[in-house]
Amino acid sequence: MFLDKLKNFKSYKTETTPCRVKLSSNENPFELSDRLKERIKEEVGKIPFNRYPDPTYRQLKESVAEFYGVQPENIVLGNGSDELIHILITVIGDLSRPVMYPVPTFPMYQVSADILGRPKVEFPLDEDFQLRKESIDSALEKKPQIAFFASPNNPTGNSFDSELIRYTADSGVFTVVDEAYIDFSDKKDFVEEALDSRTNIVVLRTMSKIGLAGIRLGVMIADSKTASLIDRVRPPFNITYPTDVIGRIVLTEGKEEIKQQVEKIILERKRIMNAVRQIKGVKVYPSDANFFLIKVPDGNKVHRMLIEEGVLVRNMSHLPNMENCLRISVGKPEENDIFIKALEKVLNAL
Amino acid sequence: MFLDKLKNFKSYKTETTPCRVKLSSNENPFELSDRLKERIKEEVGKIPFNRYPDPTYRQLKESVAEFYGVQPENIVLGNGSDELIHILITVIGDLSRPVMYPVPTFPMYQVSADILGRPKVEFPLDEDFQLRKESIDSALEKKPQIAFFASPNNPTGNSFDSELIRYTADSGVFTVVDEAYIDFSDKKDFVEEALDSRTNIVVLRTMSKIGLAGIRLGVMIADSKTASLIDRVRPPFNITYPTDVIGRIVLTEGKEEIKQQVEKIILERKRIMNAVRQIKGVKVYPSDANFFLIKVPDGNKVHRMLIEEGVLVRNMSHLPNMENCLRISVGKPEENDIFIKALEKVLNAL
Repeated sequence: MFLDKLKNFKSYKTETTPCRVKLSSNENPFELSDRLKERIKEEVGKIPFNRYPDPTYRQLKESVAEFYGVQPENIVLGNGSDELIHILITVIGDLSRPVMYPVPTFPMYQVSADILGRPKVEFPLDEDFQLRKESIDSALEKKPQIAFFASPNNPTGNSFDSELIRYTADSGVFTVVDEAYIDFSDKKDFVEEALDSRTNIVVLRTMSKIGLAGIRLGVMIADSKTASLIDRVRPPFNITYPTDVIGRIVLTEGKEEIKQQVEKIILERKRIMNAVRQIKGVKVYPSDANFFLIKVPDGNKVHRMLIEEGVLVRNMSHLPNMENCLRISVGKPEENDIFIKALEKVLNAL
Repeated sequence: MFLDKLKNFKSYKTETTPCRVKLSSNENPFELSDRLKERIKEEVGKIPFNRYPDPTYRQLKESVAEFYGVQPENIVLGNGSDELIHILITVIGDLSRPVMYPVPTFPMYQVSADILGRPKVEFPLDEDFQLRKESIDSALEKKPQIAFFASPNNPTGNSFDSELIRYTADSGVFTVVDEAYIDFSDKKDFVEEALDSRTNIVVLRTMSKIGLAGIRLGVMIADSKTASLIDRVRPPFNITYPTDVIGRIVLTEGKEEIKQQVEKIILERKRIMNAVRQIKGVKVYPSDANFFLIKVPDGNKVHRMLIEEGVLVRNMSHLPNMENCLRISVGKPEENDIFIKALEKVLNAL
């Protein structure tokens, strides 16, 4: 009785089939250096685990702010950006007024809205997975109060037209630009607009794609007034003590290392995308992210056959307008070579 | 405009005044042994921080289940029990139907309800901070769908009458028994009833009071059907990789160590409570927890003067029916001695 509504709830699903090569979760494939790992061991060993962390996360906020070139008062920290998405959908405007976002996109906007019973206005991307003004206008007619734009978008990989994001915000909708993948793009970010209290724009960032998925550290960047109001509804101890400590080490002492890994991933992305373009029967979509999307003759079958070859990619075939699409995270060079060979083999055998 | 409702929002406040002796947050005052800290350093050093943790937390669930003598399918893990409280208030029944809980109690029930705009039915405890059937009956008239009973209760320290908790559940209200402090009590827990799918009862536990506040690990124990439905709305990666690893180490290899620390805390509680009872002008309330409540002639003043003596306790004077009450967490023996001396000095100087 109490839980009836949960019976049909579509929760977030990840694939956890164990595979030799895992290219399914848009992680940074490179581990932290031994030097950083040693520093982490050293500092984690000093944590008083019996104590709560500092609920203001003053030091961590300073490190995060410096990493992004903003001030600590512009920062709200989340247990992954998942938590920040959920908080925003909970508190921005009225729960009876819709959340708008294009589809296909990152599934957590839908999941969070459904958990809260908040109405959704899902509007379609065009054939090239771009925003269209007409679709946004139709969505705006439903009077949404909050909009999410993942740019670069997941799972499509492309960046959206900034003007249309601005247009949505200017139409009076609180606009969240989820820049989880922007480190892999050369497009301009929305940080400047987020810091400007005259816009309705905030930005989300995450450490998960640049090497720290394990510690769950998401960041909202906003003008100080908005940030301080959202910070009030942040659970008081949402960041664990180890994440507090590890985040500070990596964001300060590991900044250069992360930057180099990101550059390697961008180069590898270009290399594999070129190689995959040579394979007959595969369509490759453009990417600004640490993954890219392909279309194959039979998505479900190719996905399954790749697993048999020891390669896990994400099957997107079940999503609307994504028939036969697979999402491939950029791996280490040797993993990418295995993937390319496996994909060739599988497509030849189709 | 979007955030107007947050302007008057009463967020959760903790005191962070730095003091030599911190008896304000109901933490376990004893650190983990060097042996466990070494094991943690060793295993944390092996974490692939670039990877997401296992979203099913299979191994951690097994360790937690064994620790509590239940099965893994009876467990839902939270980023602290704060997160589980928030999830339950979000999904149990309808957001337009109230949450009921006695006052004074743990503030997160109020905070979570307010964030969600869910109505609250707060009903009073009696003069001895016990539940009264009449008050529960009045609360039930408002048709709540979910009830929270922290037992032992925070900040009062006493356990509630089990029969009245059962009575609430039998009246058709989904009943959450928050047993955060039960490790320090000799009262019977509600685990058996939580495992029985015929009851409306679930139990919350936390690692925060028994030595792991820093890693944020809360636990819901329920029958497998209820647990699996709630697990669907748990954020997919809500437990960090370090917490996953550290939790497993401490719950298996550190079980005996935690047990001994808990026993020490119970002995210390008895010792300090006896000592404080000798101080003129102080009323000491009974306690089943790792803290206890006292009433003094001027709560705000005594609180401030104790800080001047280097001792931080929690001032509860601002809460209804808690005029001049202070909450004292049990510290290490030497910290407790400092507290007792300071309290004597402060009361003599009043």
